[in-house]
Amino acid sequence: MKLTILGCHSATPRINTNPTSQVLEINNHVFLIDCGEGTQVELRRNRVKFNRIKHIFISHLHGDHYFGLIGLISTFRLLTRETELHIYAPKGLKELVTLQMKLANSWTNYMLIFHELNSNESELIFEDEKVEIHTIPLDHRIYTNGFLFKEKVGQRKLDMNAVLNADIDVAYYNKLKQGFDVVNKQEVLIKNKTVTKAPNLPKSYAFCSDTAYNEAIVNIIKGVTVLYHESTFIEKNEKLAAPTKHSTAKQAAQIAKLAEVDTLILGHFSTRYDDLKVFKEEALTIFNSVLLAEAGKVIEF
Amino acid sequence: MKLTILGCHSATPRINTNPTSQVLEINNHVFLIDCGEGTQVELRRNRVKFNRIKHIFISHLHGDHYFGLIGLISTFRLLTRETELHIYAPKGLKELVTLQMKLANSWTNYMLIFHELNSNESELIFEDEKVEIHTIPLDHRIYTNGFLFKEKVGQRKLDMNAVLNADIDVAYYNKLKQGFDVVNKQEVLIKNKTVTKAPNLPKSYAFCSDTAYNEAIVNIIKGVTVLYHESTFIEKNEKLAAPTKHSTAKQAAQIAKLAEVDTLILGHFSTRYDDLKVFKEEALTIFNSVLLAEAGKVIEF
Repeated sequence: MKLTILGCHSATPRINTNPTSQVLEINNHVFLIDCGEGTQVELRRNRVKFNRIKHIFISHLHGDHYFGLIGLISTFRLLTRETELHIYAPKGLKELVTLQMKLANSWTNYMLIFHELNSNESELIFEDEKVEIHTIPLDHRIYTNGFLFKEKVGQRKLDMNAVLNADIDVAYYNKLKQGFDVVNKQEVLIKNKTVTKAPNLPKSYAFCSDTAYNEAIVNIIKGVTVLYHESTFIEKNEKLAAPTKHSTAKQAAQIAKLAEVDTLILGHFSTRYDDLKVFKEEALTIFNSVLLAEAGKVIEF
Repeated sequence: MKLTILGCHSATPRINTNPTSQVLEINNHVFLIDCGEGTQVELRRNRVKFNRIKHIFISHLHGDHYFGLIGLISTFRLLTRETELHIYAPKGLKELVTLQMKLANSWTNYMLIFHELNSNESELIFEDEKVEIHTIPLDHRIYTNGFLFKEKVGQRKLDMNAVLNADIDVAYYNKLKQGFDVVNKQEVLIKNKTVTKAPNLPKSYAFCSDTAYNEAIVNIIKGVTVLYHESTFIEKNEKLAAPTKHSTAKQAAQIAKLAEVDTLILGHFSTRYDDLKVFKEEALTIFNSVLLAEAGKVIEF
């Protein structure tokens, strides 16, 4: 998986800070997660090919998470896109985008497919052979979902020396990859594990923004490879976090620890902080693998 | 008047080009004209104080002219603005902004006053002691207005030497500025023109974007000091201009010539042109005072 941070600040776009947007690449998919104002320019700056984006995930309908979406939809049209585009977002967005297109008398040439979300339970919203995506219900001022991106367990890998020694016909290789025992050319049963190796461990990525501290998500994100958890504030300003239903760096680290993730990425920083080091220092007191999100940063895992 | 160009390209925001937005300062007013995506960042870059903007004029509801507006409205709220904000825009924008606020459950603390436009005739939409603003109906694919900003003729100026020599009481100075004849302390009638000078010539600015070539606007903008007229294309690509209801640089210059304006500013350039010099060269063949719009450019007149 390859994660590119396009923007990781809260509230308002500024000269040197962009609102939330990320690109996650998994198995040839290019998933766009949130789309604050200016995202299309950040996509260009980070050389993400517009046509490869076929799925956009919007956590919630606060402006710093989606005000760049209608512009992106419109730009796709101007670039004569034909590829269909799926948008996963809270209910209401379809009405809004439709109204904007109606007022402009400008309709997309490509299929624009809305998957409107309104469940308070975690749902499977996308699945193919290699990837599945689930919502993560979050606790924010309006209806909000995080998103869990999981690689499926892959096929077993052939141990070619062992396979050739066992004299197995090529026709059985797919069965072997699927984990079955097979017979060799002499009709002798060959145990799968003697000629194959375990598949790569599937990776997973959980995006959780925006949310108050919420232990209910721990079961959903348990053991993920990388967790992005918002930390709008530091502990010193916890009194701002609670009423706005945001988290502190410490709370994000507590969730990472409870969920036993490999690595925590902090983001959605309030623009009140000039130096973001304090976020990392605070989280490191609770959890030992912490990265700070930063526009243009690429994280491969 | 002081005009600051924030963005002057058509269609989509890119790394080095911004969609349409301008700031016009007249007599302590700071008028924002159009508001493409990214405008709030350009306002910051050009150090325009957010709180001084009390009137926003939106020409039409194509995205490159207003997709930055909802973000700006939202940022004003986050900055705890209390000053009222007037928005002059085609009918439909109020419904859209209201829906966006409803979906975010975020309402402005300040008064947000929509002046929805739907007339096809030029209308007076703003007036105070020193300034008046009229719409300029344009010919585009959807309902579109340009805006004409006119200083009113100011008061006559006292020729203080002449006033003192004529022995006129201070109580009459305002009457003199208003152009009346007055009596002096000896009850002798003093002709106004013998003790006052003509007021400064009022300046005017016409913003015309987006529009096909349209001579119907000439009467409205006759003799303005500065005309901003869109020139999305050059003459070589006129076949693109007509169906999209845009203008070429040559057509913009023809309008400037017919309207006998002092200076023409070209803008709303298609991003297909790397070098904008051709726009100026083309317009100069028709009209002799031509400027190219450019993000960050300040034009005082």
